[in-house]
Amino acid sequence: MTISGSNLIGYSRSAKGNEQFSGVIKDEAGNAWSFFEATPEEIDEAISKANTAFPLYKKLSYIQRALFLERIADEIMAIGPELIHATMQESNLPEARLLGERDRTTNQLRFFAKILRDGSWLRAIIDTPTPESPAKADIRQVQIPLGVAAVWGASNFPFAFSVAGGDTVSALAAGCPVVHKAHPAHPVTCELIGSAIIKAAKETGMPDGVFSLLHGKNYQTGLQIVRHPLVKAVAFTGSFQGGKALFDEANKREIPIPVYAEMGSVNPVFILPGILKEQGTTLAKSLAASNLLGVGQFCTNPGVVVLPGGELTPAFINDYKSAIEAATGGVMLTENIHRSFNKGTKELSEQQDVELLAKSGQQDEKLATPQAYIASAEAFLSQPELSEEVFGPSSIHNTTKNKNEMLEIARSLKGQLTATIWGNEADLKEYSELKDILQDKAGRLILNAMPTGVEVNYSMVHGGPFPATTNSTTTSVGSTAIYRFTRPVCFQGFPQSDLPEALQDSNPFGILRQINGQFTTAAIA
Amino acid sequence: MTISGSNLIGYSRSAKGNEQFSGVIKDEAGNAWSFFEATPEEIDEAISKANTAFPLYKKLSYIQRALFLERIADEIMAIGPELIHATMQESNLPEARLLGERDRTTNQLRFFAKILRDGSWLRAIIDTPTPESPAKADIRQVQIPLGVAAVWGASNFPFAFSVAGGDTVSALAAGCPVVHKAHPAHPVTCELIGSAIIKAAKETGMPDGVFSLLHGKNYQTGLQIVRHPLVKAVAFTGSFQGGKALFDEANKREIPIPVYAEMGSVNPVFILPGILKEQGTTLAKSLAASNLLGVGQFCTNPGVVVLPGGELTPAFINDYKSAIEAATGGVMLTENIHRSFNKGTKELSEQQDVELLAKSGQQDEKLATPQAYIASAEAFLSQPELSEEVFGPSSIHNTTKNKNEMLEIARSLKGQLTATIWGNEADLKEYSELKDILQDKAGRLILNAMPTGVEVNYSMVHGGPFPATTNSTTTSVGSTAIYRFTRPVCFQGFPQSDLPEALQDSNPFGILRQINGQFTTAAIA
Repeated sequence: MTISGSNLIGYSRSAKGNEQFSGVIKDEAGNAWSFFEATPEEIDEAISKANTAFPLYKKLSYIQRALFLERIADEIMAIGPELIHATMQESNLPEARLLGERDRTTNQLRFFAKILRDGSWLRAIIDTPTPESPAKADIRQVQIPLGVAAVWGASNFPFAFSVAGGDTVSALAAGCPVVHKAHPAHPVTCELIGSAIIKAAKETGMPDGVFSLLHGKNYQTGLQIVRHPLVKAVAFTGSFQGGKALFDEANKREIPIPVYAEMGSVNPVFILPGILKEQGTTLAKSLAASNLLGVGQFCTNPGVVVLPGGELTPAFINDYKSAIEAATGGVMLTENIHRSFNKGTKELSEQQDVELLAKSGQQDEKLATPQAYIASAEAFLSQPELSEEVFGPSSIHNTTKNKNEMLEIARSLKGQLTATIWGNEADLKEYSELKDILQDKAGRLILNAMPTGVEVNYSMVHGGPFPATTNSTTTSVGSTAIYRFTRPVCFQGFPQSDLPEALQDSNPFGILRQINGQFTTAAIA
Repeated sequence: MTISGSNLIGYSRSAKGNEQFSGVIKDEAGNAWSFFEATPEEIDEAISKANTAFPLYKKLSYIQRALFLERIADEIMAIGPELIHATMQESNLPEARLLGERDRTTNQLRFFAKILRDGSWLRAIIDTPTPESPAKADIRQVQIPLGVAAVWGASNFPFAFSVAGGDTVSALAAGCPVVHKAHPAHPVTCELIGSAIIKAAKETGMPDGVFSLLHGKNYQTGLQIVRHPLVKAVAFTGSFQGGKALFDEANKREIPIPVYAEMGSVNPVFILPGILKEQGTTLAKSLAASNLLGVGQFCTNPGVVVLPGGELTPAFINDYKSAIEAATGGVMLTENIHRSFNKGTKELSEQQDVELLAKSGQQDEKLATPQAYIASAEAFLSQPELSEEVFGPSSIHNTTKNKNEMLEIARSLKGQLTATIWGNEADLKEYSELKDILQDKAGRLILNAMPTGVEVNYSMVHGGPFPATTNSTTTSVGSTAIYRFTRPVCFQGFPQSDLPEALQDSNPFGILRQINGQFTTAAIA
């Protein structure tokens, strides 16, 4: 394996800077590969190149874009075991998980290619003069790409939410060139995947600049990208601090731009009395397993558990306690994340009326120690800090005295990616208000399943009200993620030859369109 | 006619404040009706009431909401000539125009009722386990309302963009209670229409608080509304200063909220050589008529005209000059708007290399004087001030030397609501790049028609890149305006009885849904 450490600026490699940072992977001589921080000049070059590519790229047919995405998937697979081994070292994630995540990533690329080929994503809407309204103007709406998209990769999914992850693929599918800010936690992975994208772009005839990868460990790189006038949209997955900083910066621009930041949440799980009675022990074990998945480093990790009053709750708590005590620790993605986890759990343990419920028996300075806390509903309601995310294998359990207290906790929650209810039929009837309350708090409502695990499909909402994201009307996973990078435009009175194909009478690709209110794949006679 | 001057807080009238302002309409005794500025307490009351109404209102069936909207239309018509006469006095707009605008407004209410009944607006998306993927989760997405919407009325369309205008109707259709900030230029109109909405709400069984109307002339009223934690979205039509202030304020909140501000634009019109030759004189006359429509007070008023080089341009300019000189002045909506118009045109006339092209012969201090300016492309390109909106019957014409200069002007434009091309077939071929450039600048591209006139239909985009609006991914007119007030949520693993009807297998209302990627109105077997 040879790693250049360069920035990938379209089809060129560039290493003009004086600042470098080292990754964790070493070359054959035992030296860590190092990476060139993008200079202001290189950042401008990448964005300008992307902007030059934009008019060419957006004019390509959707089939051509689909071929590009499919080829990216092929090129990622073609890297072979080298990629998996590098990413294992850079993320401390196990091989099986990374093999699965790579599949998910390539499937996601193919899924968006399928969406492009289908064409209904364009939301073509046509109004024509009709016998009843012959004087109506002929107006036709379609989605067009916004322009250069800047994408920040996340550390916790080095494939699925990084260089060729959901943000990049939905922006590319939409017709937006992507400038990707590489996550410094896995720069070798970034270079390997970035190179695969560049190779795919060349081989499918994409314009130079359709994709760039920039390295940068310092805060300034990110700020310069979001401030650049040619950047038209930003997508980010990561911490609240990081996402909010980009959001604020984008709103300060002379021309503000949308920032789609997915900033995580505590993903509350509400356990109702009936199901607790029926399957308390199993539930405690599965919930602990979900909390510990990937060393607790999932955006949808269940961090808050709300328990009903009653005699069965102590048994559940005891089962959960045993599961955590028996759990083994894990190496976190980065040392920084580990430090934050230790800091967060320490702060939690010092909160008033919060008690340690359980800690893994196996403790090791290098590993994150699985742990859980417990507090009364009253304590939870009076201390908003208790509902803040601690990224890692930790959770806080709240015991409520009655239904009202449980509903009160639901009402007190901030915006979440997910909210989960565990309940049987009778529970759902008894607690019907809970679903209504949680609906206004989360992007995804889950019944009797764990929140970890985000399917890439048509209906997924991986989003939710602030602070889960900065824009609750969108999702960062699933087919509708594409609309973060498009806007509607309408054409009034244009002849057939000057309309985009999707809006032409003949409907050359047979896509679904809304014509005078009716949905049809038919041509206009 | 009796006017209370009160704030309408749900089903109650409230006049707690000490501050009042007078409208222009007088009662029988000759005293101007006066209006109570909403107090901080009243603002909080209206928003809290709306928030209490929200869970009740959003649970109503879409048919019930449709009946409400249709009843609003009926109640507006039932006010009768009194409304038209009052609005004529408050807006200085002529009877015929207001009769037409009232029809447009009631038709818009009925159009959204039709959309609600149709159900496809819900964008129901369903993924189920399939024989190929039996382990897939059952996930179902639907649009849900955001919560309390705060809406600011505009002065230039006292019906269509005011109390029962497009913002209010699309928010109510989406399931959001509306707190409407009345425009102080037409408070009697606001009270009459607001009362019609309240009456319709009562008679169709809507919850108290589904609609409130607040008066306020001072800036603080608006700020208090946008800062209120229970407000979840803002819609505004008006000036750049007003819209941008709300946008900035909303982004400063602990929990930022979307602001959909439509702030107007100069709506550039590009005239190409072929059509200039074919119909220069007609075109000059129609363009002047469009510029003068409603005393130039349309958001889509053509304020910038870009002309080709060549021998025919002077004739066009001369024809336009004659049309403006022959035009009569008009009373503007308010004295403030008139003052701004005078200030704006004065500043324009003082710009370097800008010459007065024409001024109406009939000049009267009380009337806005139709006028036009002319500048070279060079001057236009070097002075960004020349492409700023002057709200009223004024325009600036730019003469270009060649195609490149015309394209350069197109590239230099900021975001616009509309961009218009006048050209014949040969022109469009010769200037094909122009359409591509303008596509990235505007929400609506128009060929060979005037930009004034915004149809309420399925395909309309009344929006566009900043500074035309604060959110280019939306529109404030047309069926898709509803999505400004909704967000997607998905349900995973819920039994039929706990799903919204739109997502139930049986598809009880027979709406269009996307099921495992396929669009169908069929039930799930």
